[in-house]
Amino acid sequence: MRILFITADGFEDTELLCPMYRFKEEGCQVDIAAPDWGEVKGKRGYPVSANLALDEVEPSGFRMLFLPGGKAPDRLRTVPEVLDIVRAFDRDKRPIAAICHGPLILASAGLLKGRRATCYWKVAGAIEQAGARYEDSPVVVDENLITSREPVDLPEFMKKVIEALHEQGEE
Amino acid sequence: MRILFITADGFEDTELLCPMYRFKEEGCQVDIAAPDWGEVKGKRGYPVSANLALDEVEPSGFRMLFLPGGKAPDRLRTVPEVLDIVRAFDRDKRPIAAICHGPLILASAGLLKGRRATCYWKVAGAIEQAGARYEDSPVVVDENLITSREPVDLPEFMKKVIEALHEQGEE
Repeated sequence: MRILFITADGFEDTELLCPMYRFKEEGCQVDIAAPDWGEVKGKRGYPVSANLALDEVEPSGFRMLFLPGGKAPDRLRTVPEVLDIVRAFDRDKRPIAAICHGPLILASAGLLKGRRATCYWKVAGAIEQAGARYEDSPVVVDENLITSREPVDLPEFMKKVIEALHEQGEE
Repeated sequence: MRILFITADGFEDTELLCPMYRFKEEGCQVDIAAPDWGEVKGKRGYPVSANLALDEVEPSGFRMLFLPGGKAPDRLRTVPEVLDIVRAFDRDKRPIAAICHGPLILASAGLLKGRRATCYWKVAGAIEQAGARYEDSPVVVDENLITSREPVDLPEFMKKVIEALHEQGEE
């Protein structure tokens, strides 16, 4: 099973690294796409290697899309390739998991209209303006969208994310 | 199920945080013991709250002991309370998981004589001097001891750790 992460410099380190390790524990292959191929760095300085540039991503090859938070989503939400990828996942009803500032990308892609979602409290207003029905919960599941607020929510968030991974059957 | 972490300032952030979130995802309660009650900080600056001082720890109340790496183990390996706790877990054959510099604490407690173990490569000589049969593998399981090398090993390490948690039955 292949999982796609989309991120950029300034990601919230644990929101990328802990889920990445968790997916690998589950036997998944994790691909990381960023504006440029190569190293991207988290807010706290952890480096990860982006093995895909955004224009190389073929969404149909992935089981799930994962959007970590931090400062990266603000850099990504205006990038046309990012919005195209996110919309392709949603069109096919493939799961999209987003935490913290990650749901801002879903807002910019126009995917939150009338849908239940959560995010970091400081950007709750922004996702509501995009039409989301915001809930202040550790994790919110609305069909294929799985959203969460912040790092301390990772246990409850990843429980739902891993469930969603297996609900689609093994591949 | 209760899990005990022992750590101090300078822990390797992901080696504490990712396993802590993973245990909580599994429904465990995680207690963190440190030389002093209160906040401890990782190398990269993440804070965690130690809810136990070392002299308050009652080892029999915990299912498993977890020892993250970083600079913390060097501060802990000469502390008598730490060595007493570690030996109590081993005497009862309760699982002890240690990663990176964490196995140094097992070495100081005299638990590695003739036992298979791994650790961060820079301290491999130190655990061999303590009698361990060092293996350069992502994870090594020798009865109740589960050891690992570094953060990128977390997926394979945590897979064995979670297996060991459940092998003892639910409580």
